[in-house]
Amino acid sequence: MEYSGFSKATVGRLPLYLQYLRRLPVGIRTVSAAAIARELDLGEVQVRKDFCAVCGKGKPRIGYETAVLIASIERALGSGSTCEAVIVGAGRLGTALLGFGGFSEYGITILRAFDSAPNKCSSPKVLPVENLPEYCALHQVEIGILTVPPGAAQQTAELLVRSGVRAIWCFAPVKLRVGPDIAVHYENLALSLAHLHQRVKALSEH
Amino acid sequence: MEYSGFSKATVGRLPLYLQYLRRLPVGIRTVSAAAIARELDLGEVQVRKDFCAVCGKGKPRIGYETAVLIASIERALGSGSTCEAVIVGAGRLGTALLGFGGFSEYGITILRAFDSAPNKCSSPKVLPVENLPEYCALHQVEIGILTVPPGAAQQTAELLVRSGVRAIWCFAPVKLRVGPDIAVHYENLALSLAHLHQRVKALSEH
Repeated sequence: MEYSGFSKATVGRLPLYLQYLRRLPVGIRTVSAAAIARELDLGEVQVRKDFCAVCGKGKPRIGYETAVLIASIERALGSGSTCEAVIVGAGRLGTALLGFGGFSEYGITILRAFDSAPNKCSSPKVLPVENLPEYCALHQVEIGILTVPPGAAQQTAELLVRSGVRAIWCFAPVKLRVGPDIAVHYENLALSLAHLHQRVKALSEH
Repeated sequence: MEYSGFSKATVGRLPLYLQYLRRLPVGIRTVSAAAIARELDLGEVQVRKDFCAVCGKGKPRIGYETAVLIASIERALGSGSTCEAVIVGAGRLGTALLGFGGFSEYGITILRAFDSAPNKCSSPKVLPVENLPEYCALHQVEIGILTVPPGAAQQTAELLVRSGVRAIWCFAPVKLRVGPDIAVHYENLALSLAHLHQRVKALSEH
């Protein structure tokens, strides 16, 4: 199923807007796209488009009501409706993600990681993978983050789906076989680096 | 400067093709895009486009010469012209990337990480950040991977540029100020997860 919400780029800018708007002095009741674009070093048309996707058009010569804009962006980012995710695979990448604070501003919390050998980490946040189904059921976990080795990825994905998650963020270099009602995002870090390498080569050939 | 090489998606599929082609029995001197598409569960048009970008069109009713295709893909992936990258910031994410084996198939090696407190890791692969300029000069390092905290990102980027790197893969949630001859790729992991969260919301609203 095609996703028809905001673009990834828009979602990426929303926290910037929110940060800026929340820092405005009390009493600033309206803001213009032009002022925000200038402050954040973005294109004005881009800002207008982002705001239009989130809360409709501003008023000519007035702009946007600050409070409405803040509430709309918070809603778009899912604040209020916090989502919980779990990590399966508490290796180096899994524990790095577990300790990463950057997800909360998008309304996502990661409280636990699961591993087949939980004792290899001393963290109380890492639990045995056998506890995954029960934990997911109790905490209404929506997203599973797969950081297991490739050979364990498919069976772990199936366990996550049986446990009720509706989306999988997959770091293993495999193609998962899951139903069409499960959203999967494959993260290929090697690919980002390879693409950067190619850009360097292209730069040096010009 | 706009990058005009292969698309990121194409680069992502090249290792798949290579893996498949290298496994073909000796004696298979030509392959067709249709056969490869079927084997790898890809669209035939997509495979044709990828191959066209890498080595031109195949011959009607014959396809591609296997050896030429392999050599072309290897060249496109930068094999032979191996690129070295260094990591700055040997926290959890930095050490996870240091231990990640997936970069080599794109011709990229990461042999060392640098940190202002290298002793916090027991790995001999982690060196003091003071040694970075000398190491880069000796090893012709092309890419710097930034996994330092946001507050240290700009000065670390400047150190990398002074050390001669031509590209920066930045995991810190900041906007770097570097010259136009330096390629920068910002990796925002929180954003990938936020986008997945939005897809889940969109799925459940339909």
